[in-house]
Amino acid sequence: MTSETTYADNRPHVVIIGAGFGGIWAAKTLARQPVRVTLLDKNNYHTFQPLLYQVAAAEIEPEQIGYPVRGILRRMPNVTFTLAEVTAVDLHAQTVTTTQGTLAYDYLILATGSITQFFGTPGAAAHSFSLKTMEEGVRLRNHILTCFERAVHAPPAERRQLLTFVVVGGGPTGVEYAGALSELVYGPLRKDFPELDITDVSIVLLEAAGRVLGGMSESLSAYAARSLDKMKVVVQLEKRVTAVTDTAVTLHDGAQIPTSTVVWVAGVGGEGLARGSGIEVLGNGRVPVLPTLQLPQHERVFAIGDLAAFTVPEGGYLPMVAQVAIQQGIQAAQNIGRHQLGVPLTPFHYWDKGSMATIGRNKAVVDWHGRSFTGFLAWLMWGVIHIMYLIGFRNRIMVMLSWAWRYFTFEQTVRLIMPSSQAGWLALAPEKVNEKSAD
Amino acid sequence: MTSETTYADNRPHVVIIGAGFGGIWAAKTLARQPVRVTLLDKNNYHTFQPLLYQVAAAEIEPEQIGYPVRGILRRMPNVTFTLAEVTAVDLHAQTVTTTQGTLAYDYLILATGSITQFFGTPGAAAHSFSLKTMEEGVRLRNHILTCFERAVHAPPAERRQLLTFVVVGGGPTGVEYAGALSELVYGPLRKDFPELDITDVSIVLLEAAGRVLGGMSESLSAYAARSLDKMKVVVQLEKRVTAVTDTAVTLHDGAQIPTSTVVWVAGVGGEGLARGSGIEVLGNGRVPVLPTLQLPQHERVFAIGDLAAFTVPEGGYLPMVAQVAIQQGIQAAQNIGRHQLGVPLTPFHYWDKGSMATIGRNKAVVDWHGRSFTGFLAWLMWGVIHIMYLIGFRNRIMVMLSWAWRYFTFEQTVRLIMPSSQAGWLALAPEKVNEKSAD
Repeated sequence: MTSETTYADNRPHVVIIGAGFGGIWAAKTLARQPVRVTLLDKNNYHTFQPLLYQVAAAEIEPEQIGYPVRGILRRMPNVTFTLAEVTAVDLHAQTVTTTQGTLAYDYLILATGSITQFFGTPGAAAHSFSLKTMEEGVRLRNHILTCFERAVHAPPAERRQLLTFVVVGGGPTGVEYAGALSELVYGPLRKDFPELDITDVSIVLLEAAGRVLGGMSESLSAYAARSLDKMKVVVQLEKRVTAVTDTAVTLHDGAQIPTSTVVWVAGVGGEGLARGSGIEVLGNGRVPVLPTLQLPQHERVFAIGDLAAFTVPEGGYLPMVAQVAIQQGIQAAQNIGRHQLGVPLTPFHYWDKGSMATIGRNKAVVDWHGRSFTGFLAWLMWGVIHIMYLIGFRNRIMVMLSWAWRYFTFEQTVRLIMPSSQAGWLALAPEKVNEKSAD
Repeated sequence: MTSETTYADNRPHVVIIGAGFGGIWAAKTLARQPVRVTLLDKNNYHTFQPLLYQVAAAEIEPEQIGYPVRGILRRMPNVTFTLAEVTAVDLHAQTVTTTQGTLAYDYLILATGSITQFFGTPGAAAHSFSLKTMEEGVRLRNHILTCFERAVHAPPAERRQLLTFVVVGGGPTGVEYAGALSELVYGPLRKDFPELDITDVSIVLLEAAGRVLGGMSESLSAYAARSLDKMKVVVQLEKRVTAVTDTAVTLHDGAQIPTSTVVWVAGVGGEGLARGSGIEVLGNGRVPVLPTLQLPQHERVFAIGDLAAFTVPEGGYLPMVAQVAIQQGIQAAQNIGRHQLGVPLTPFHYWDKGSMATIGRNKAVVDWHGRSFTGFLAWLMWGVIHIMYLIGFRNRIMVMLSWAWRYFTFEQTVRLIMPSSQAGWLALAPEKVNEKSAD
C-alpha cells in the first residue's frame, strides 16, 4: 500500500471504507470519473444483508448471498481493493490507518454501515444472537439446529428451554426471521426429530411498541401479526426486554421466558469507526451529514448509508435500508466529481421505492407510497426485487433455485451445523461474541 | 440416551459409529431388518468427500456436498441418530461411551473412516493443510485466497512464498487438487489480482514414487503428468518431504521450497477411536478384519470402509475408497442379519468399479478393469458417477449447476474468505490444527 500511495498519479485519490451497498455503488459511479479509488473492507466479499435471515433459517447457502469484491471491481481499472480492517481515520491529516498500513486520501467516503444496538440491556450483548454479518447468520443457523439435537437428550424443563426461540424486535428483520423459523421448525425439523414432541416448541416475537412493522401502515401490521399467529409464532406487543441470560429473557413486567436462544434484532446504530476516530456522532453512533452528504466542516469527507444520519424535512432521519445506501453511494460519488470541477454540490433526495417484508410462503407485505399489498402478489414483488439487487448472476440463479426447491418440496435443505462452530455444539454456549456491537 | 437404552424393545440394538459412506449404507440396509439402530456421528451431516477438493478450490459451496443425516434417515423408523463424539468403545462390556452418555450394543459397526497421516515428518502436522473434513476444505479455500490478498502488500521474496502452493502426494486427491488450483489461479484469480505478476505464482506437486496416480496404469500416469504440465503445475517425482515449516518445505535431497501453503494429501490411516479403545490395529491405525468383516474374537463387532484393513488374495489391503465402504456397509448389515438367524456369515467380495480422477476441464483418467479412458469421455464419466453418488437431489442439481456455470464462464465464484476464519486472514497462520491427525 505504501508503494501505491507514492505511485505518481495526478488523479485525486478517493478512499471508500466499506463494501456494502453504499460503498459498492459509490465505487461503480467513481469508475467513470478521473479519480483513482481504493475500496477497503474487512471481508473479501459483499454481503447481501436482506437475505441474511434466510441463511440463519437454513434456507440458502451463505455463499449465495456473498460476492467477491474483486469480482465486482474487475471492469473498473481505476478501483483497487484492499482487504484490511480500518483502525482509525484522521480527518485533519487526511489519512486512514488500516491493518495493511496507512493511506492518504483526497476524498473519503465513510460507508461502514451499522451494528446491533442493545441499549444497555443487561446481558443482551453477551447472550443474544445478532443478524448483521455472514458469520452471525451461520452461527445462528448452527445454534438453532444444535438446540434441537440437544433437546433430544435433555430433561423436560431444559428441553422446553432449548426449544423456545425468542426474537426481540418486531421490525422487518424480526418478522421475517420469526416467519422463516416457523417454516423451518414446523416443516423439516418436525420430520427430522420424531423423538421430540413438537408442542414443546415455542417461537416468540417480542415488540416494545403497540404493533409489529411500525414503519408500515396499520393494516399491514395487522396482516403480519395475523399471518404470524397462523404460523404458530406468539407475537407479544408492548413488551420491553430488561435482561437476557443464557437461560432466560426477562420482560419489563417481571415475566420470564426460559430460552436458550434470543435473537436480537431490536435496534441498530452506526458502526464504531467514526466514533472511535473522534468524528462527531449522534448518541446511536450515526454521523450527521449535510444535505450534500458531506460532513460539516469537512468538505472532502462523505458519510452514506446506515452510518449517515440524514435529516428529513418531516423530522427524524432516513431509514437504514439498502435503497438509501445505494442512492447515497451514487450521489456522494457524483458530488466528488462536482467538487473537483468546482461546481456546487447537489443535495441528496431520497427516491422512496417503498418498503416490504416477507413473512412466509405466499405471505408478504409491501408498502408503496401509501398503497398496501399483501399475500401472493406482495410475496412475488418481494422475490423479484430481492433477486434484482443480488449481485452476481450465479447467485441469482442459485437463490432462485433454492427458493423454488423449498417452495415445491417444503424443505429447508441447508440444515447443517457447519465448520466454524465445530466447537459450538459440544459446549452449547457458542461464542456469542458481540464485542463489536454497541452495548 | 439413557431413557432410550432402557426402553423396552426386544429387537437387537445395532450401533453404527460414523455417518460416512459405510455407516450410511449399513444403516440403509439395516432399516429393512428387525433391529433397532443408533447411528452416531460428530457432525449432523454426511460429507461427500470425493468433492471436498472442489470446496477447497472455491468451485462449489461446502453445503452442496453435505447432507443432513436426519434427512437421510427419515424413512427409516428403526434408525435413530445421535449427534455425539464417541470417546471410547468397550468390546467386553459391549458399550460405547459418547459425549451424550453411554450406549449398550448387541452389534457394533465401526465406520469411523480415516485421518491424514504425516509419517512423523517434522512440522508436517503443525504446518500443513489436510483435506479430509468440510472444515479443512473451507479452511484451505480461505487460506489460498488470503495468500493472494497478502501477496499484494508483501515484499518480493515473501510475495513469491505466499504465491507458491505445494501439494504433497500424487495420488488422486493430489492430482485433482493441483489441477483445480491451477484452474482457480490462472483463471479467476489472475483477473481478480491485476496488481500481481502471475509469473510469481507456482504450483508444485510432490510425489515420492516415480509416477503420479501409482494405483492406475502407467499410460494414465503419463497422461495425468502431461496434463498437469500443460496447466503449469510443476510435477516433481521421487521427492520425499523431510520437514515442513510455516515458510518452507524441505525435500530429502536438501532442496527447499519457500511456501506458505503445504497441502498434505500423501497418506491416510485409520481414525484413532479403535486404537484409543485398545482394539488391535495395524501400524497405520487400520483394524484388521475377517473376510466376514468381523473383528477376530469379536463376532458382534464389524469394521468397514477406510478403517477396515481387508486383506486381498494378491496381498495388501483393499483401497480406502468410497466404493469399498459402501459395499462393506451393505455386507456388514447383511451379516448382522445372518448372525441373528444363526446362519453362516458370508465373506466380503469387492466388486471393483474402477478408479478415476479428474484433472481439469475436459481432462480426466478412468481405469476400468485394465481399460483406460482419458480426456473428454473420461471427464464425462467422472462427472456422471460423482453426481450419482452424491446424496440429495437438491445437492445434485446445485453441483451440476456449479459445474455448468464454471464450465461456460471459466469462473470459480465461491472465492469467499468466509466466517469461521474471520480471525484467519488477519494473522496469516490460521489455526492449522491437525491435532486429530496421526503424526
